[in-house]
Amino acid sequence: MADEKLSNNLLQELKRGTLTLSVLLMSGKPTYGYSLVTELQDAGINVEQNTLYPLLRRLESQGLLQSSWDTGESRPRKYYSITDDGRITVSRLGEEWRRINRVMSRMMNEEEGK
Amino acid sequence: MADEKLSNNLLQELKRGTLTLSVLLMSGKPTYGYSLVTELQDAGINVEQNTLYPLLRRLESQGLLQSSWDTGESRPRKYYSITDDGRITVSRLGEEWRRINRVMSRMMNEEEGK
Repeated sequence: MADEKLSNNLLQELKRGTLTLSVLLMSGKPTYGYSLVTELQDAGINVEQNTLYPLLRRLESQGLLQSSWDTGESRPRKYYSITDDGRITVSRLGEEWRRINRVMSRMMNEEEGK
Repeated sequence: MADEKLSNNLLQELKRGTLTLSVLLMSGKPTYGYSLVTELQDAGINVEQNTLYPLLRRLESQGLLQSSWDTGESRPRKYYSITDDGRITVSRLGEEWRRINRVMSRMMNEEEGK
């Protein structure tokens, strides 16, 4: 029986690369951390707050997201939205995703056809 | 203009997770390192020998690939093939890949529809 922990590590590796792309795709309209966790979960991507929050800060420091505080509500919230550089990156990553996807689908179909 | 290097790092991250799955998918029949580099390139996945070889050794030490030497030819070659545990892992990773793919395609289509 394949080791459960190993399998999980490989799954994590597979998911890590797509999380950045998903977060950028979801930041087309301004959104705050917790709301993003919920939206990602609704989309079928389970992510912990302590994984997402550092990623949001990283993407901001890389200039792909920008943030602003909304102090109008009882509790101030930091809203993130995508920058122009972020959109360029999304378009590049999206293109590469589609390419990888075609390759992988073909390989998996060949494997199943055996 | 988005930073080229950053974009490349994100692309690497996106590719890394799929490389393991591709290599396992391609090891259904025994194959040696250099031949795998060529097959992956033909499939549209560019990978350097110094990335692939440590990955093959890692997958063998994890019990997902097994190896044997073919000394019949002028130059001895180490052939790798998938193990039963490897097949179980491929089936789990493949399922997760399909799931992630459905989610990502939906998100990208929504983004484009805006």
